[in-house]
Amino acid sequence: MKKETTNSLLNVINTPADLRQLAPDQLPQVCDELRQDIIKELSTNPGHFAASLGVVELTVALHHVFNTPYDRIVWDVGHQAYGHKILTGRRDRFSTNRKLGGIRPFPSPEESEYDTFSCGHASNSISAALGMAVAARQKGEPDRHVVAVIGDGSMGGGLAFEGLNNVSSTPNNLLIILNDNDMAIDRSVGGMKQYLFNLTTSNRYNQLRFKISRLLFKMGILNEERRKALIRLGNSLKSLVAQQQNIFEGMNIRYFGPIDGHDVKNIARILRDIKDMEGPKVLHLHTTKGKGFEPAEKYPGIWHAPGRFDPKSGKRIVASSKGLPPLFQDVFGHTLVELAELNPRIVGVTPAMPSGCSMCFMMEKMPDRAFDVGIAEGHAVTFSGGMAKDGMQPFCNIYSSFMQRAYDNVIHDVALQKLPVVFCLDRAGLVGEDGPTHHGMFDLAYMRPIPNLTISSPMDEQELRRLMYTAQLPDKGPFVIRYPRGRGVLVDWMCPLEEIPVGKGRKLKEGNSLAVITIGPIGNIAAKAIARAEAEDDELSIAHYDLRFIKPLDEELLHEVGRKFKYILTVEDGVITGGMGSAVMEFMNDHDYKPEIRRIGIPDKFIEHGTVAQLYHLCGMDEEGILEKLKSPVMVGAGE
Amino acid sequence: MKKETTNSLLNVINTPADLRQLAPDQLPQVCDELRQDIIKELSTNPGHFAASLGVVELTVALHHVFNTPYDRIVWDVGHQAYGHKILTGRRDRFSTNRKLGGIRPFPSPEESEYDTFSCGHASNSISAALGMAVAARQKGEPDRHVVAVIGDGSMGGGLAFEGLNNVSSTPNNLLIILNDNDMAIDRSVGGMKQYLFNLTTSNRYNQLRFKISRLLFKMGILNEERRKALIRLGNSLKSLVAQQQNIFEGMNIRYFGPIDGHDVKNIARILRDIKDMEGPKVLHLHTTKGKGFEPAEKYPGIWHAPGRFDPKSGKRIVASSKGLPPLFQDVFGHTLVELAELNPRIVGVTPAMPSGCSMCFMMEKMPDRAFDVGIAEGHAVTFSGGMAKDGMQPFCNIYSSFMQRAYDNVIHDVALQKLPVVFCLDRAGLVGEDGPTHHGMFDLAYMRPIPNLTISSPMDEQELRRLMYTAQLPDKGPFVIRYPRGRGVLVDWMCPLEEIPVGKGRKLKEGNSLAVITIGPIGNIAAKAIARAEAEDDELSIAHYDLRFIKPLDEELLHEVGRKFKYILTVEDGVITGGMGSAVMEFMNDHDYKPEIRRIGIPDKFIEHGTVAQLYHLCGMDEEGILEKLKSPVMVGAGE
Repeated sequence: MKKETTNSLLNVINTPADLRQLAPDQLPQVCDELRQDIIKELSTNPGHFAASLGVVELTVALHHVFNTPYDRIVWDVGHQAYGHKILTGRRDRFSTNRKLGGIRPFPSPEESEYDTFSCGHASNSISAALGMAVAARQKGEPDRHVVAVIGDGSMGGGLAFEGLNNVSSTPNNLLIILNDNDMAIDRSVGGMKQYLFNLTTSNRYNQLRFKISRLLFKMGILNEERRKALIRLGNSLKSLVAQQQNIFEGMNIRYFGPIDGHDVKNIARILRDIKDMEGPKVLHLHTTKGKGFEPAEKYPGIWHAPGRFDPKSGKRIVASSKGLPPLFQDVFGHTLVELAELNPRIVGVTPAMPSGCSMCFMMEKMPDRAFDVGIAEGHAVTFSGGMAKDGMQPFCNIYSSFMQRAYDNVIHDVALQKLPVVFCLDRAGLVGEDGPTHHGMFDLAYMRPIPNLTISSPMDEQELRRLMYTAQLPDKGPFVIRYPRGRGVLVDWMCPLEEIPVGKGRKLKEGNSLAVITIGPIGNIAAKAIARAEAEDDELSIAHYDLRFIKPLDEELLHEVGRKFKYILTVEDGVITGGMGSAVMEFMNDHDYKPEIRRIGIPDKFIEHGTVAQLYHLCGMDEEGILEKLKSPVMVGAGE
Repeated sequence: MKKETTNSLLNVINTPADLRQLAPDQLPQVCDELRQDIIKELSTNPGHFAASLGVVELTVALHHVFNTPYDRIVWDVGHQAYGHKILTGRRDRFSTNRKLGGIRPFPSPEESEYDTFSCGHASNSISAALGMAVAARQKGEPDRHVVAVIGDGSMGGGLAFEGLNNVSSTPNNLLIILNDNDMAIDRSVGGMKQYLFNLTTSNRYNQLRFKISRLLFKMGILNEERRKALIRLGNSLKSLVAQQQNIFEGMNIRYFGPIDGHDVKNIARILRDIKDMEGPKVLHLHTTKGKGFEPAEKYPGIWHAPGRFDPKSGKRIVASSKGLPPLFQDVFGHTLVELAELNPRIVGVTPAMPSGCSMCFMMEKMPDRAFDVGIAEGHAVTFSGGMAKDGMQPFCNIYSSFMQRAYDNVIHDVALQKLPVVFCLDRAGLVGEDGPTHHGMFDLAYMRPIPNLTISSPMDEQELRRLMYTAQLPDKGPFVIRYPRGRGVLVDWMCPLEEIPVGKGRKLKEGNSLAVITIGPIGNIAAKAIARAEAEDDELSIAHYDLRFIKPLDEELLHEVGRKFKYILTVEDGVITGGMGSAVMEFMNDHDYKPEIRRIGIPDKFIEHGTVAQLYHLCGMDEEGILEKLKSPVMVGAGE
């Protein structure tokens, strides 16, 4: 990032220690510069936008008041951490954000000592921060401050509640900052949101208490005895004024707020006031997602990750999609509406991703039949199970990597009872720039051992439509459909809704030398590699099978392959440990076929961020990689 | 169960419809009889005891007031449902409870239409019941009542909070009964418990409101307009009295209580009063776990599942364990203390199972270093991750089947960051009488695809000690140790704490005909089967390898097996789909060995309840089953 020359404060901040040299009065200017930095940079190098704008003041105040990195700041979800990155020594490299080999999309301890914990999945900050706060005590470093910064959307997640429920169980000095902007990626939902709203409208009592406590603090009467007196006073006041309890106070966590999250000087002042108070505390901040950039303030959902835009006019630079295949997401969204119009039992469930997964189409058309349950994957699945138990046909759409959070719910609340829930696993496989926390790479491997499940993946948009149609027919039981992020391969994707026999794959191409078995859209890449391999070598004749289902397996298809071929290449956009290739291997072994089997898929390590094409290349899953395997000695040298 | 002849009401209750013929005044007698039934039956056929005694009155009141099974009662965890079973047509068969082919340990929809949802894992009732309540509306059956019965322990689980958070999002008539006995299996912990306690001590305001609402209800002024007036009145009262809010009311759920959970007539009266009120509601009940049986009231933890006992004297009939091998749990518990005394970085974490997993030893000796976090598996893992990130060495003990609830936490909050958390998966494999919800059968398969993990299982108690010692040495990263419920095999289990090289298995026995590869204590059964097979057939010479680690694999050992043997039998106490046998298969395939591999393990279906020995037999995992495979044609006929 090019540094401004005129009076820039940001230019002299290489680390937060430099920031701490500034006077409080200078903080608003730092915020302005930081905000402009983010706007300018994001306009050309797309990323998460509105969330980071919303916490500029909080970020500056935190690093000004706390002794980072000795003090720990734990961000909940990294969407919001761009300002944090710029202030913590990564301004120069910030233009590489989200690019292969560049700055990571979310805070990552591997990248910076200021990044204290992995934070791609929501709601984990309180638990992790509590762990750090307890560790500080255990190790005799009670002066270390630990701060968790959590959004109101994340606060609705069960993990956050479990953390909160445990905060007061052990002596610690944890500060939880509740960044309340009434938004996750889409608008927040649920009772907690309502609860926080109610707190806001009845905050006079809190402010009174806060003023009193600050007064007492400033008077220097915060020794242990006096502190207890203060708490007693708080409790007396409370019992005078209220028999009911603030949920946080009721759980023995001191509550402060709500305060304006864009008044940096006031935030810093309050942080200084409360940072050394003993025991766990919550500071409730009101912020505006997209703050300081008008279009983003107006449409925070769209500006969550807006792509490129003109920083002056605020116009988004949207590439024309004319003539391109549709997004799998949109095919899902439109087809769901179509099916729901035919089948009144169909309901939709999404945990906080209505726009991302395109269930928003159904929410608009049939608001009574589509449910955004907030960041609550476990509930999404069990709630779907409850509806299915009483005769509904839920389509529960959860991003593959987030489905990891509902694993037990799939087993215990759906599969065990054979309930007809259709799980649509969006963002399956490598997702690109969001990196290791977001790749949907484990689903085939972790779903496959679960009894009673049907597990499928469509090779293209029409197959997705057919699988969705099939899944909602009577007596299909629990049914998984996984598909990737982004565009499909068919411009002409509308097709009649026809049933696919469960557990039946397809032979896409005959061949004699070897068999390629694929599942999902990566089959299209494999098809190209096959064509090239055959074009380059007349002797080669490669059969291609689209397995479609990894459970139940197409035994007829696999017997044909087992009888006919000595060489099998499996290709999947998922971990090879325990995935589709392993399923094929188990089948061949159990039926005494002895082919050579080579597996292409994601190797046994976490995959960094980059474009999907780059990552496919790194994993040998692109056309070149598959071609190479098709031509490799074991495959070709031994060709019949 | 033998029916009483004298004046028994229970004798005339074949279904809840019969119960509903009784007058409210007769309910106390029903409760007395039901309680005596449970005490008598459980004294000879062991099971979960104290929980069911605690909800006798609630159970009778629910079935008296609600039109079951048309109305839905969703129990949260089935520990408490014995009274429910007896009242719903299963009294005659109740003596088969928990036995192979008999009444299931927890409510199961497959068994009875009165059992509405699977309930082995805590905290799922609100989500499932909400699904049913929504389904009732969608299907045009708004007169159906849906009731979730949840304990205060379960209420601390994240899933329960997610459910609660969504209860008010959609029109429904859900009733949540909070059965507050201040206990899960062990004593409840956490802020929510404190919160509920505070509610109790400040309940006068609630009782006032409740009386008013009942009065208004009885006056028949509950049409829509008046209902709103009532709510407005409630809110005005509230704003007069309190600026703070009851958490439930703040989330738009009407709150009633707390009331005495053992006054059956009053419970029934209140249920009748509130059942037709529109919108979601919570009724807070105080109960005593073990109610009506003095020793159980006094020691509800021990009497959670006390085994056999004398129903008169209250003496538990504990079989002598003299000369028997110890429980794996106790070896874990004692070894943890031993290690923690040597390594000050060690801390212990358990989600509500301190007695079950024997971390109670550490909690007694080092109360500051062992944490019971309540029913909160996700938090247990992420909290451990936070402590590990800041230099501690957590031992996080979670039952294998409950670890399914923390799958994403293991991936996202520990493995991705290579944090040195030791996961001790207790109750791994088939657990016996607790049945399909509790078998720890998936862990090897779902852990294996996760990068950076070390995954091990000890064959005996000494191996467990050595693995625990190894896991806490520096730089071992995240480390999984799985072991079963119950006794080990060594009476003399104390041994020096020595390091086991990570990823190194053991050759237990040489052989030439075929190789048996096992992991975990089932290796001891395999060893016996091997000895018998060799004794029965002089030609046979069977090698036995204890793999110890399924990740990383012992490549040297497997190369030896691959080079030497045409026939391999793998034996594991886990699902064969994607488990240890598959790992061996992947290795052999990838290294171009072509042995016949046969896998013994849990087949691809949910396994019912029974004794472990019975279930092992059903799955072909007992000595006979292994022996048969060792003598089967493919293995023996082809022996070298």
